Amino acid sequence: MNRFEEGLECLKIKLLEMSSLVENAIQCSIDAVVKSDQGAAQKVLDSEARINTIELEIDALAIELLALHQPMASNLRLIIAVLKINTDLERMGDLSVAIARSAQSLIETPAIEPIVDIPFIAGLVQSMVRKSLDAFVAGDVDLALSVLASDDIVDSLRTNYYHQLVSFMRKDPQNVNPALNLLAVTRTLERLADHSTNIAEDVFFFVKGVDVRHRLGQATNS
Amino acid sequence: MNRFEEGLECLKIKLLEMSSLVENAIQCSIDAVVKSDQGAAQKVLDSEARINTIELEIDALAIELLALHQPMASNLRLIIAVLKINTDLERMGDLSVAIARSAQSLIETPAIEPIVDIPFIAGLVQSMVRKSLDAFVAGDVDLALSVLASDDIVDSLRTNYYHQLVSFMRKDPQNVNPALNLLAVTRTLERLADHSTNIAEDVFFFVKGVDVRHRLGQATNS
Repeated sequence: MNRFEEGLECLKIKLLEMSSLVENAIQCSIDAVVKSDQGAAQKVLDSEARINTIELEIDALAIELLALHQPMASNLRLIIAVLKINTDLERMGDLSVAIARSAQSLIETPAIEPIVDIPFIAGLVQSMVRKSLDAFVAGDVDLALSVLASDDIVDSLRTNYYHQLVSFMRKDPQNVNPALNLLAVTRTLERLADHSTNIAEDVFFFVKGVDVRHRLGQATNS
Repeated sequence: MNRFEEGLECLKIKLLEMSSLVENAIQCSIDAVVKSDQGAAQKVLDSEARINTIELEIDALAIELLALHQPMASNLRLIIAVLKINTDLERMGDLSVAIARSAQSLIETPAIEPIVDIPFIAGLVQSMVRKSLDAFVAGDVDLALSVLASDDIVDSLRTNYYHQLVSFMRKDPQNVNPALNLLAVTRTLERLADHSTNIAEDVFFFVKGVDVRHRLGQATNS
């Protein structure tokens, strides 16, 4: 293995570490909401600093590899994909922090009924995150495609739940605060789904050398 | 001018076109909210396709320049910064669409009082967007720094307005829908401010070769 290959291997390992930290933060943030688990919320807040640090390390290594080795073709695409996925993962870390903060507010406000949709939407979103990262590791374009299809389902579930929570707020002013926190959670879950879609699109670019953004969405919607 | 310099010049011009499209979309989306201007909302929706196309063109050109010319040092940093800023600008285009959609819902629902804060917050956010892009064009680190300082002000204004709208919702169920739309607008404005912050950080990296993310925020907060 030459120095460039070693560097590339190190870059992949760091991105896997980043992925695993972010997936873990997402899991804890959802546990914090669904199980009213204050400790899980704290774990998310504690993991933010490590995620921020590793983001900087990955970017620095990627740029060093570009500067020292001037890679071409698929290796260049791989490094560009890592730079983009890294940015998405860091934002996903921030979004878990947002969910954990909503969970903390929900724990303080009286419990309300319609939380049933959250675990379901969260499960779908977590599966999108997992698949998009697996697709990157395996260079699996079909798996990436399946992520894009799920995005529409998450959007429509979120819209239904939105209307349900709005009528809940209109029924009783006491419901306004908890319902706003639940709305914030589902909105953030939808943003996590959007980031998984970005990652899936980056997998296409990396594997096929074709940029499918703003085109695949239309293809899968039809 | 050699071919690489020509390519780099073309890349900068395309990014300026992208910036101007996005700034224009933001302006129209705010007009749509503040002046209940249906035509302005439509302009934002119409500009989305062009923004998406130019995003792909910029990415393709940046990657071509990396592949064909293997630039080093400040030119490499410039291209990486363009790739990152391009991603932020495209998302900012999406956020203007979100504001335009909220404007359309607001036009359909009866007018409510507390809209006064929106033009003020919007003005601050637009000034952040402008400064971050000017800082990139001029390579002006001090101007980039001033963007980071404004982010905290936008956050605190948004929080105050949030509490105001929540009490408005609790007072009368009729207020729930319009207040939710106004909340969506301010939340999206805050996300626009976050993207300007990202751009300002990319300017630091491009000019100084130093990655200041997750560090400058703390410095300016103290």
